[in-house]
Amino acid sequence: MSLSTQNYKGTRDFYPDEMRLRKWMFSKWREVMESFGYEEYDGPILESLDLFTAKTSEEIVNDQSFNFTDRGGRRVIMRPEMTPTVSRMVAKKRQELGYPLRLYSIPNCFRYERQQRGRLREFWQLNADIFGVEGVQAEFEMMLLINKLMESFGATEDMYEIRINSRMFLDKRIAEAGVKTSLPEITRLIDAFEKLEADIFTQKLKDQVEDAEKLYSFLTNDGGTAEGDELINKAKKAGVKNIRFVPTIARGFEYYTDIVFEVFDKNPDNNRSMFGGGRYDGLVGEFGVDPVPTVGFGMGDVTFQNFLETNDLIDDLKTETDLYLIPIGEVESETQAIAQDLRTKGLNVAVDLSGKKLDKQIKTAEKKGINNVVFVGEEEVKSSKYKLKNLNTGKEVVASLDEISKIISTT
Amino acid sequence: MSLSTQNYKGTRDFYPDEMRLRKWMFSKWREVMESFGYEEYDGPILESLDLFTAKTSEEIVNDQSFNFTDRGGRRVIMRPEMTPTVSRMVAKKRQELGYPLRLYSIPNCFRYERQQRGRLREFWQLNADIFGVEGVQAEFEMMLLINKLMESFGATEDMYEIRINSRMFLDKRIAEAGVKTSLPEITRLIDAFEKLEADIFTQKLKDQVEDAEKLYSFLTNDGGTAEGDELINKAKKAGVKNIRFVPTIARGFEYYTDIVFEVFDKNPDNNRSMFGGGRYDGLVGEFGVDPVPTVGFGMGDVTFQNFLETNDLIDDLKTETDLYLIPIGEVESETQAIAQDLRTKGLNVAVDLSGKKLDKQIKTAEKKGINNVVFVGEEEVKSSKYKLKNLNTGKEVVASLDEISKIISTT
Repeated sequence: MSLSTQNYKGTRDFYPDEMRLRKWMFSKWREVMESFGYEEYDGPILESLDLFTAKTSEEIVNDQSFNFTDRGGRRVIMRPEMTPTVSRMVAKKRQELGYPLRLYSIPNCFRYERQQRGRLREFWQLNADIFGVEGVQAEFEMMLLINKLMESFGATEDMYEIRINSRMFLDKRIAEAGVKTSLPEITRLIDAFEKLEADIFTQKLKDQVEDAEKLYSFLTNDGGTAEGDELINKAKKAGVKNIRFVPTIARGFEYYTDIVFEVFDKNPDNNRSMFGGGRYDGLVGEFGVDPVPTVGFGMGDVTFQNFLETNDLIDDLKTETDLYLIPIGEVESETQAIAQDLRTKGLNVAVDLSGKKLDKQIKTAEKKGINNVVFVGEEEVKSSKYKLKNLNTGKEVVASLDEISKIISTT
Repeated sequence: MSLSTQNYKGTRDFYPDEMRLRKWMFSKWREVMESFGYEEYDGPILESLDLFTAKTSEEIVNDQSFNFTDRGGRRVIMRPEMTPTVSRMVAKKRQELGYPLRLYSIPNCFRYERQQRGRLREFWQLNADIFGVEGVQAEFEMMLLINKLMESFGATEDMYEIRINSRMFLDKRIAEAGVKTSLPEITRLIDAFEKLEADIFTQKLKDQVEDAEKLYSFLTNDGGTAEGDELINKAKKAGVKNIRFVPTIARGFEYYTDIVFEVFDKNPDNNRSMFGGGRYDGLVGEFGVDPVPTVGFGMGDVTFQNFLETNDLIDDLKTETDLYLIPIGEVESETQAIAQDLRTKGLNVAVDLSGKKLDKQIKTAEKKGINNVVFVGEEEVKSSKYKLKNLNTGKEVVASLDEISKIISTT
């Protein structure tokens, strides 16, 4: 019986075209993060399950995580998000690190999800965190960072919106309204506000709090908190105009302690939360060290790529291979020697080793999206002059390797 | 009770310094791979267990893999190596892809190993494969590629050696000697030849084949095969001198069909196999499509980094942050505006938001390895002139932002 070529459900195979897109996206992320002085880190995909059951989203750990017992009897989890890992790492070197500490990472994370648009079982996520800043200056920097990240892909302010809320303020209002179920449950319901019909939402709210009317009126009122207003004013003054206070922004994770934010895609075809984050001042302290105030966000590759696609913001990406060498006759070793020479001149060069006919070899170059081909026969090897053909324009020149490298480097 | 800061056994936390080293290593790998026209791909970390039980190393799947049943009852494995995945991917698009197809990837792989030097449970591995070339030209290219990969790190030919064997030839000799156990078992024994004492090896060999003496005499004789000799001659002619035929090179994986090779670290402190590969013409065909001849190798990051360390080949890597801005007084928002300006001028700029005293802020910059600091007070904001200090030389200048960006870009 043949093996199946199917990849595991909810994962992706990245062929060179898809990989090129991913690399392009990630390299832009890296560039912006590093321009703000963030340094890249990484942690293991496997973590102890304890790390995640302690402080993250119950829903994610219990219902959506890949966890198992290893051969040594340890309970392990494939990370569903990065925040517990980075908090663990900071706690481990609490004294050695310099604050404010700016860290970023682009880990792949794993969740056992049913397949739906924007949700996959394996996805990547840009994680940005600033450790050691108590005041709103940290959140302010996050707003500037988000603005630059979006701008670097050509996104304009009308395409998305930053929505701010205070988790501390929200928790207080929920407490005032009288909790019937539990705070995390009510928070999750409020987090789904945008997705639910108003009457379904109010009905569910009535089941969960004593004074649903009072809470509902707060949730649908635009009034902000002093700190939220300060953040919004600072951001607007710095040119980030598409930001406002929205009292229903809750975020699913339980570790948030104060301001939370979400970035919404405003395109009618794709109208939803793209990514978000907030302040979590308590997590590093859970590891038995002095707490470190922290603000961070995570930005998933799948949702973000959807945003770029909907708004037509993806560059036309080309193969990295500059030149395809086509041996004619038994000159493959000689052609490799020519390739080696051209590589030292800075070109990326592939050699056709198929032994196929000339026209088939040209077809292969076209299939790979390589624009330039050079034909190598016995005579060419002797004379050290080669025919270079541009497959786009059809133009041909006969030239030395030096000349060929110059022509290609300048076009 | 506090959470543990310990990472899961056999994995690594990559803090910025370690991450910088990893990125430096990977970017050099990428550069060389792309100079040979190889294109980067990636596949999922989770694969169906079937994919690996069919054709890889029995030992790895049964004793050393992380595998489990998912919430939907599917048997899955965290990839212990990349070859089955890339073969699956090529089979899936067998008709669309152009041959020779050159692919590379730097996946992380997972093996449940006891801890020992060079072995971790999570490791990265450069995988290079060329698909669609039947003749020795493919192996020849791999030799050139390995040579360039090593050279790009400054490794010289005396530091390592490429050892070649023919699996086809070896299998034949084993068969001639009379198999008592099984071919894979005998192959694994031969693979361990270098690690075992001669008398232990011969004793074990006697347990596994009828005519151990005959096989032993073959294994300790340097005579090559016609194809192996051709490869070695081609490679030597192309400047790859540190290559020879060694009949005990076997490789653990069962899918190899012909020439196999290993790269040995010749340093007496680290004398062992660094990485290897070979020809596996049968794997793509296992997916019910026409077979595709393939040659590939995999190069682990841990062993390779050991090699670089032993031979003192690691560059002195610096932080990506060019400049650290130190606000004096309540000018943090203004300092962020200055940072934004300098970022548009191409600098990577971090702002200290700790509110700490001047000397502490300078210490933080030093801790992060940032060479240049700029002091921003109210007066500086008014005059648009700032003091730039180089922490290495102690030199100070008062300059505009334009001038500062020029000074830093040119030093």
